[in-house]
Amino acid sequence: MSRRYAILALDRFATDAKTAHGVIRYAGDEIAAVIDPASAGRRVRDILPYLECDAPIVASLAEALKFSPTALLIGTAPKGGGLPTQWRAAVREAIDARLEIVSGLHELLDEDREFRVAARAAGTRIWDVREPPEVPLFSGDVYGVAAPIVLTIGNDCAVGKMTVSLEIVRAANASGKRTRFVPTGQTGVLIAGWGICVDRVISDFAAGACEQLVLYAAHEGADFIVVEGQGAINHPAYAAVTLALMTGCAPDALVLVFDPRRPQIETYATPTLGYSRAIALHEDLLATIKPAPVVGVALNTRGLTDDEAAAEIAHAREVTGLPCDDLIRYGGESFYAAIAPRIAKASPLGPAART
Amino acid sequence: MSRRYAILALDRFATDAKTAHGVIRYAGDEIAAVIDPASAGRRVRDILPYLECDAPIVASLAEALKFSPTALLIGTAPKGGGLPTQWRAAVREAIDARLEIVSGLHELLDEDREFRVAARAAGTRIWDVREPPEVPLFSGDVYGVAAPIVLTIGNDCAVGKMTVSLEIVRAANASGKRTRFVPTGQTGVLIAGWGICVDRVISDFAAGACEQLVLYAAHEGADFIVVEGQGAINHPAYAAVTLALMTGCAPDALVLVFDPRRPQIETYATPTLGYSRAIALHEDLLATIKPAPVVGVALNTRGLTDDEAAAEIAHAREVTGLPCDDLIRYGGESFYAAIAPRIAKASPLGPAART
Repeated sequence: MSRRYAILALDRFATDAKTAHGVIRYAGDEIAAVIDPASAGRRVRDILPYLECDAPIVASLAEALKFSPTALLIGTAPKGGGLPTQWRAAVREAIDARLEIVSGLHELLDEDREFRVAARAAGTRIWDVREPPEVPLFSGDVYGVAAPIVLTIGNDCAVGKMTVSLEIVRAANASGKRTRFVPTGQTGVLIAGWGICVDRVISDFAAGACEQLVLYAAHEGADFIVVEGQGAINHPAYAAVTLALMTGCAPDALVLVFDPRRPQIETYATPTLGYSRAIALHEDLLATIKPAPVVGVALNTRGLTDDEAAAEIAHAREVTGLPCDDLIRYGGESFYAAIAPRIAKASPLGPAART
Repeated sequence: MSRRYAILALDRFATDAKTAHGVIRYAGDEIAAVIDPASAGRRVRDILPYLECDAPIVASLAEALKFSPTALLIGTAPKGGGLPTQWRAAVREAIDARLEIVSGLHELLDEDREFRVAARAAGTRIWDVREPPEVPLFSGDVYGVAAPIVLTIGNDCAVGKMTVSLEIVRAANASGKRTRFVPTGQTGVLIAGWGICVDRVISDFAAGACEQLVLYAAHEGADFIVVEGQGAINHPAYAAVTLALMTGCAPDALVLVFDPRRPQIETYATPTLGYSRAIALHEDLLATIKPAPVVGVALNTRGLTDDEAAAEIAHAREVTGLPCDDLIRYGGESFYAAIAPRIAKASPLGPAART
């Protein structure tokens, strides 16, 4: 399943290639080379030291091929979601060189006639990460998974649910657990090399898609499963996706990812939930299907000073009585150590007296 | 928008044509004729008096054409969802006679090559009711709708949310309101002649689809809007669809449709919610986006004796303090009169202090 990527990021690797950065930082795949004439001749760590990657940066696909990649990753997801015209030649060359093409673009490359025909002729494939596979309806099989399942939830979109999930996975693995990250969105899927963009699944099947993802992780032998959450439970547009994850993944515990500097949901007038209300709302909902307590709060204190961050974390601890930390600022180890004892395998409800 | 239907129900109109029955009972469309050789020569009211329909039953499409239909409705949705082989000839004849073809089958007739080519040649169209149109993301425009919006919710699937919605619409119209029923599922869409099967919309767009439906009803000049709900908020498989309706339709008030004889959600072990918990859970969720109180409980007392039904309704009134009734058993008028004063236009939350 592991890939060895050439990453296409023409003239924008240093500035505007978040997809590439996420994959380099978190994916298990090898990086053969980055293709960007603007930085050619240097190495990734010269440009972006925090990515801790020594791969060479080259000027063309032809040069990248010398480093034996197995796949070409489109390293960016530009506004509008299309493939920049000047990138087409490199994609076509990569197909002809029998590389797998991996793309998170809205524009599906496998629906591009030239690319599809060429890929078939070359015997390689185009993986459009956003396109979901067909999945069955939710069955309840996920209730039989033995490994504890943690789902990240948040007070808004884009507060760091994926990053927190990955940091928990890293800390849990370091502590000796065989942990699986379950990706549910485009960047997560690219990082893990598998998964489903749940927000692109037909509503009726969204919980079923989540169930299949968790079953796959369990089948791969995980003894601890961490699912990347999406959206927010009071998001006017995307709450349904959030709830599909909450029901379909059948979590045993939740981690609340919280950005204290968001007064409202994205551009909507809807206020974000505070700590207590967010915790109560998620717990009350899941208490009707399969109970899952919030076991910790991962704060996103980006933009705050060290003192401000410490004060906010202390405030969160006081309000919630739970382990609270910023996993980017302080690493995931102590947070994982604090939440681990609180994570117990829960059972779905059986028929009971109605209240 | 109104159609004049020939309804195809070969050899099963009397026994197994629920789609046909629903459309005859509730749709505003005219019924030109029913095609069923087994009952040919009689009229609908001879076979099924409660449908209150005087349309003739004929043996063939050719005969039905004498009654000037504008569309052919596939009058049943058999298990498996395919078109019975012996029905193909009638569908093809109808296309050639330039009738619109209206189908709620899982099998999309517009993807049948013969039918599609024939329809294009005849200049008519095939409307596969289950296939959703492309819709925009949720925008918040629905918050500007002036008409009060009521959404039915339920303690399970298939407890009567569509029927209750239609009975409320009927009673409201009888009281002088210009009321619009907003259909969100296959049968509702067939009955209304428009709408979207929300459970077939891509998750990200499900709330947007609901918003578009309400905006359409408002645009048509409704001064009261009643939306057919789907699923249940604690349904392990379909809760996400339920929440998409709750957020996307932006209701001002909810009517809880409740079947007291359902101990658990469909075939899942999940217990159904009791009156109080169901009311609290829905209200708590919507209180974070746009508040909507439950204004009444419509009980489904099918299978109970009159005394048992009266006792259950009295119990529901005592527990909830709300207007409670069975709209099928006792009609919708008094229930509508009781809930109408409780329905007030609500506003979405603005940014506020977080709790």
